[in-house]
Amino acid sequence: MKVFGIDPGSDRTGYGCVDTDGSRHRLVVCGAVVTPPRAAFQEKLLVIYQGLHRLLAEHRPDCVAVENVFYARNVRSALKLGHARGVALLAAVAGGYPLFEYTPAEIKRTVVGYGRAEKAQVGEMVRLLLGLDTAPSPLDASDALATAICHIHSTHGQAREVLNEAARGARRLPKSWREYRP
Amino acid sequence: MKVFGIDPGSDRTGYGCVDTDGSRHRLVVCGAVVTPPRAAFQEKLLVIYQGLHRLLAEHRPDCVAVENVFYARNVRSALKLGHARGVALLAAVAGGYPLFEYTPAEIKRTVVGYGRAEKAQVGEMVRLLLGLDTAPSPLDASDALATAICHIHSTHGQAREVLNEAARGARRLPKSWREYRP
Repeated sequence: MKVFGIDPGSDRTGYGCVDTDGSRHRLVVCGAVVTPPRAAFQEKLLVIYQGLHRLLAEHRPDCVAVENVFYARNVRSALKLGHARGVALLAAVAGGYPLFEYTPAEIKRTVVGYGRAEKAQVGEMVRLLLGLDTAPSPLDASDALATAICHIHSTHGQAREVLNEAARGARRLPKSWREYRP
Repeated sequence: MKVFGIDPGSDRTGYGCVDTDGSRHRLVVCGAVVTPPRAAFQEKLLVIYQGLHRLLAEHRPDCVAVENVFYARNVRSALKLGHARGVALLAAVAGGYPLFEYTPAEIKRTVVGYGRAEKAQVGEMVRLLLGLDTAPSPLDASDALATAICHIHSTHGQAREVLNEAARGARRLPKSWREYRP
C-alpha cells in the first residue's frame, strides 16, 4: 500500500509518500512545494495545486492522508491556511484518491506515542520507522511523512483489531476490512 | 466587458456575470453552486470547483471579481470559508482569468454608497443597476453580482481619473490604462 501524506501551507506544502507491506515502511519520495514569496496569493494556490497534482499523478498512491486542522493563531491565519488546505484536498479528490484526515494530536500519538510530542521527536520517529540515516527535511516533509505513517498505523491497527474480534467470533468482518489492502 | 462575480461559501457559492459597455450593465447569468448537504467536505470543494470551472468556460468573462474576507465569526468558520474561497480562486486563476478582490465594505460603498448597507439594500441596487423586475435571488447570487458591479464601477472610476489626469498633462497614460477595455 502506498500512502501519500500532505501537510498544507500557503508558503510551503510538505509532502511524503510511503510504501508499506504492513510492517516495513519504505520512503518513496518527500519534499515541499515551495511557493514564490513574491507571487500573488492566488498564484501560490495554483502552484500548490499543480505541484500536488503532478506528484500524485507520478506516484499514484492508494490513498492520501492530510493533517486536519481546527486551530489557528487567529482568523486571518485560519483563512490563509484554509485556502491552501482547500486546494490540497481538491488535488486529492479531483484525482480520485481516497482521502483520510488526522489531527496533529492523532498523528503525534500514533507516530511518537504522545499527543504533545515536539517536532524534532516526530522527525526522529519518522527517520527510525523509514530506516533513514538522517531525519527527513524540511520539517514540512517530515510532518507529511508522519501523517502518511499515522494513516498506515491507524488502518493496520484497525485491521488487526477487526481480525482479533473476528477470531473471537464476535461479529463477521465488516465491509471496511474487506476493502483493506495492506 | 464581461465581469464574473463570485461570493464563495462551502454550502452555497453565489455567482453572477455582468456585461457592460461602461455605463449600461446587462445581467448575463446568476445563481448559486449549491453543495449536497450530506456530502463529505472534500466532495463539496470538488462540486464548487467543477461548477465554477464549467460556468467560466461557458461564459468566458474578461475577468473575475471575488469578495475578499478578513473577518469570520471564529477560527473554525474562517477555516471552512478559506477552503471554499481557495478552490474558487483556483478555478479563476487556473482558467487564466484576471482576478480582482474587493472587501464587503468596498462592495457596499461602491454599489450602494454606504459601506455598512444591509443585504436588502445591496439587492435593490443590483436590481436597479441591472434593470431587473425583482432583486436577484438567492442572496448569494445578488452578492456575487454586487461584486462584479463593484469591479466595473471601480475600474471605470479609475479609468476616468487616469483620463482626467492625462488631460491635465500631469503624466502620460500608465500601462494599466492602455490595458483597460471598457
